[in-house]
Amino acid sequence: MDEFPDIQARPSDSGFKLTRVGITGVRKPVSISRPGRVVTLVAETDVYVDLPADLRGSHMSRNVEAFNEIVEASARDPAPGLEDVCLNMARELLIRHEYATRAESRMSADYFLERETPSGVRTTEPFRLLARATALRGGEERLAIGVEVRGMNACPCAMETVRSLMIEEYPDAAESLRGDIPCITHNQRNITTVEVETGGEERVEADDLVELAELGQSARTLEILKREDEARQVLEAHRNPKFVEDVVRDILGLLLEKLDGLAGDTMVRVRCESEESIHKHNAVAERVTTLAELRL
Amino acid sequence: MDEFPDIQARPSDSGFKLTRVGITGVRKPVSISRPGRVVTLVAETDVYVDLPADLRGSHMSRNVEAFNEIVEASARDPAPGLEDVCLNMARELLIRHEYATRAESRMSADYFLERETPSGVRTTEPFRLLARATALRGGEERLAIGVEVRGMNACPCAMETVRSLMIEEYPDAAESLRGDIPCITHNQRNITTVEVETGGEERVEADDLVELAELGQSARTLEILKREDEARQVLEAHRNPKFVEDVVRDILGLLLEKLDGLAGDTMVRVRCESEESIHKHNAVAERVTTLAELRL
Amino acid sequence: MDEFPDIQARPSDSGFKLTRVGITGVRKPVSISRPGRVVTLVAETDVYVDLPADLRGSHMSRNVEAFNEIVEASARDPAPGLEDVCLNMARELLIRHEYATRAESRMSADYFLERETPSGVRTTEPFRLLARATALRGGEERLAIGVEVRGMNACPCAMETVRSLMIEEYPDAAESLRGDIPCITHNQRNITTVEVETGGEERVEADDLVELAELGQSARTLEILKREDEARQVLEAHRNPKFVEDVVRDILGLLLEKLDGLAGDTMVRVRCESEESIHKHNAVAERVTTLAELRL
Amino acid sequence: MDEFPDIQARPSDSGFKLTRVGITGVRKPVSISRPGRVVTLVAETDVYVDLPADLRGSHMSRNVEAFNEIVEASARDPAPGLEDVCLNMARELLIRHEYATRAESRMSADYFLERETPSGVRTTEPFRLLARATALRGGEERLAIGVEVRGMNACPCAMETVRSLMIEEYPDAAESLRGDIPCITHNQRNITTVEVETGGEERVEADDLVELAELGQSARTLEILKREDEARQVLEAHRNPKFVEDVVRDILGLLLEKLDGLAGDTMVRVRCESEESIHKHNAVAERVTTLAELRL
Repeated sequence: MDEFPDIQARPSDSGFKLTRVGITGVRKPVSISRPGRVVTLVAETDVYVDLPADLRGSHMSRNVEAFNEIVEASARDPAPGLEDVCLNMARELLIRHEYATRAESRMSADYFLERETPSGVRTTEPFRLLARATALRGGEERLAIGVEVRGMNACPCAMETVRSLMIEEYPDAAESLRGDIPCITHNQRNITTVEVETGGEERVEADDLVELAELGQSARTLEILKREDEARQVLEAHRNPKFVEDVVRDILGLLLEKLDGLAGDTMVRVRCESEESIHKHNAVAERVTTLAELRL
Repeated sequence: MDEFPDIQARPSDSGFKLTRVGITGVRKPVSISRPGRVVTLVAETDVYVDLPADLRGSHMSRNVEAFNEIVEASARDPAPGLEDVCLNMARELLIRHEYATRAESRMSADYFLERETPSGVRTTEPFRLLARATALRGGEERLAIGVEVRGMNACPCAMETVRSLMIEEYPDAAESLRGDIPCITHNQRNITTVEVETGGEERVEADDLVELAELGQSARTLEILKREDEARQVLEAHRNPKFVEDVVRDILGLLLEKLDGLAGDTMVRVRCESEESIHKHNAVAERVTTLAELRL
Repeated sequence: MDEFPDIQARPSDSGFKLTRVGITGVRKPVSISRPGRVVTLVAETDVYVDLPADLRGSHMSRNVEAFNEIVEASARDPAPGLEDVCLNMARELLIRHEYATRAESRMSADYFLERETPSGVRTTEPFRLLARATALRGGEERLAIGVEVRGMNACPCAMETVRSLMIEEYPDAAESLRGDIPCITHNQRNITTVEVETGGEERVEADDLVELAELGQSARTLEILKREDEARQVLEAHRNPKFVEDVVRDILGLLLEKLDGLAGDTMVRVRCESEESIHKHNAVAERVTTLAELRL
Repeated sequence: MDEFPDIQARPSDSGFKLTRVGITGVRKPVSISRPGRVVTLVAETDVYVDLPADLRGSHMSRNVEAFNEIVEASARDPAPGLEDVCLNMARELLIRHEYATRAESRMSADYFLERETPSGVRTTEPFRLLARATALRGGEERLAIGVEVRGMNACPCAMETVRSLMIEEYPDAAESLRGDIPCITHNQRNITTVEVETGGEERVEADDLVELAELGQSARTLEILKREDEARQVLEAHRNPKFVEDVVRDILGLLLEKLDGLAGDTMVRVRCESEESIHKHNAVAERVTTLAELRL
């Protein structure tokens, strides 16, 4: 058998170009070089290129071939971040799909960092990395790194309402239900996402974003908590009661400082979703903006 | 075209019978008759029959045909519960798959009940129904109804540890930190499941199981809560702090009373999963048993 | 107890406004009026408003109250489409959140339509509705209706490659392997999404979008297929082999005709995801554009 | 602060023991030693112990501590399989929960194996490992290893019906639509699960189970397929058309040989779920049994 027909390369008579054509849900182990170590992540990946109006199909197998090349390169010489792997992928896609004007790659992966409990026990905490990159034929490149962090938030509104209610119901304890002492409220798990998209030259460290997200929440969650540690975390959350709105704004403030040197067109997305303990639904706050707008 | 070959009916030379053969993920609207009203549920359904060693394939299209018949019957004359629809389905499967010795049907669906907030506002709360039935060729039938309820639980252990910690840190507020006054703790959303499987004759009301689950949790969750209502729910949860173990055991106690007249071989499953606000993982307690064993 | 503090209304000193604040994952039954009937859908809903920099929190309970009002109105006088319910909700949100400049509502729900098999058997097929609306304080309104349709596509490239391979391997069967006769290829389930966003005055019928999606796929899927019907569907898919790119473009062509009278700024999104039977990953094509651009 | 109250250790007056109490959804990196290499998996883990009637709560933090110990041990001296990690965990749980009579651990993880395409290209294919172990205070231990494999199956019934239909519709090609030549049919992705549970002494190699699953399907799926390879895979699937029932039975036959030396009480579960390309629902076949019963 000599030659198979290249159906994808046949002209398309539709007259419609396509925004993105590619593959989703590819899973592969990818090595990245983190501060002081190399880690292997199981990346779940989507890649796309655009398709001109006059071409019937994209060559889908080139996507996985590009991926393999990038993964093998990452094994020999790990990129510093998952967003760099994405960018390398987007560049490779532009080379292999000569008809494309834009390539896009998205990866997410479980990611682990060491933390310490209040009493000094070391624990390995799971987070989620969200990376993406786009490369244009003309040379423009954008890349983004984001993190998803499970923390805890305690409601400031219910705390004050419960305080009033308790003062009524426990009048003999009223004096010690003063406003400077944390009071009962509902608290719950929340998922905080922080994502920063920069031009191709600038980089943001994912570990820093995890830290900012943890700082923004009422308290961080930890996988191991002995009795006293648990009490300290719970109390910290109640000394630090926050709406989802507060979490997002406090992280925006921290980001402004941390990303001080970055360009004004840097995109920032901060989102906090609280899995409300008193409702069956979730509460959410989000800001999507540029550094320039934040700096006003 | 006269006749298509019946490949499924061909003899199988494998010598292996199969435990279950069927279809999963079928979605259809099903009407059931609830106390005082008829409701239409979107049921997600799996049905199976067993297959003898000497038959190559089950006739899969008969499953959907049986389903359609049951659904049409339910529109004319709604069954009292989703578990009855399951049982009708299992019976119909045995008729249509003459080679099967056992038929099984599982359905789950969103389900809504009216609730009232502490201040008397009516709210529609979402729950999940879990129904199943099995029918044996010999005549034996079992059917089960279960509910999944999103509620709230407050940790009794952290409450006492936080109390100790606060007495240390706020010595002048000791008055409000007495053991008879609720104190700060972590609280969170939990998913409580209560399921009862009976012989073919006995029935358990799903609405009762929802109520038992709500009673077992530290407090119920409600979709609408104005400020004072919210404070009352939060305070109730803190007056009623419970481990997942407590939730399961309290519901078992309530079930024992409620299911007083039922046979000893009635199966009971109670499970409480707490989406811990201080951890990234969940805590779970579960009991699977018979009424006879519970009554000991 | 007189008055609880309104913590949300307190001034925020962050200086950061928020893009969206609201609730997600609310489930409620919603009635809509479809051609010739009223149907009740279980809608899963997210609603958001924006929040100015000088306000600490959004009044979250107003969201559910607005929802309840809309749902009750829908029971008395069903809106014609889920997107209308979304728009009513967005308007109500603007009224209740007097500080917001923009309100947004998204709903998705299982949805069922009658279909007929080639031999004339009626079957109830499940689809998914995706609706959303935004309303600006200034009066501008946009609303979108979309559908998600599970169909089948057969690969045109593999068909020709397999044909070449089979001609080599079965030279004496060359007669049935001519290019005008469908040949073996891989085929698979695919999820096709068609979404149209219009200004507040224009409407698109969801049932039409389902039909266009089905027409664009290699063949529709049906829940009941007796042997001959199954063969006809399979053969139809193989007479109509399509890349995901083809499916998207063919639907774009059909949309252009169907949406003939609509404004040029109407947004259109068509996406086809093929759950490849020969790969562990999926293939995707998508176009996001305006009618004006499509009409060029 | 000296001592915190041990609320969990307090007597329970419920009279109800609990079947399982523990934690779910813990994610941690775990090292295992595979043939010729050490791999690090991201294991998602659930662990449980039972709880006697007279104890109020299980000490949940001991579960994560046990996990940490096991993970650190796995880093120093990797266990040969994920099921061994589970067994070590179950043993450790029995030590740390002195009141428990039974401990249980379940882990699942993405897992990668090298494969070769028909033309010799190497590709890394993703699978899923499913491991679990139970340990009784009395000494009895059981452990299970399972795999989830995404492959392809082509329907043998539709192939013959389509053949008949095509003979009618293409009478001049009738001669070459003979029964010994593969014909058009619907094919689709399927998920095949093979799981083997043995007593504590015997082991089954996960890589072998993946291979058996692949052998049982109509054809394996591969992440990279150039045109000719794709045609070969598609043709292989059509030369090997199989119902889900066939896939399960063929794997049962292969397992019988492969597990020749294992005890009769070895549990075996084989399940094949086909994501039907012609339906919106899935087709499933499953057998749950012992080797002794299979050997009859």
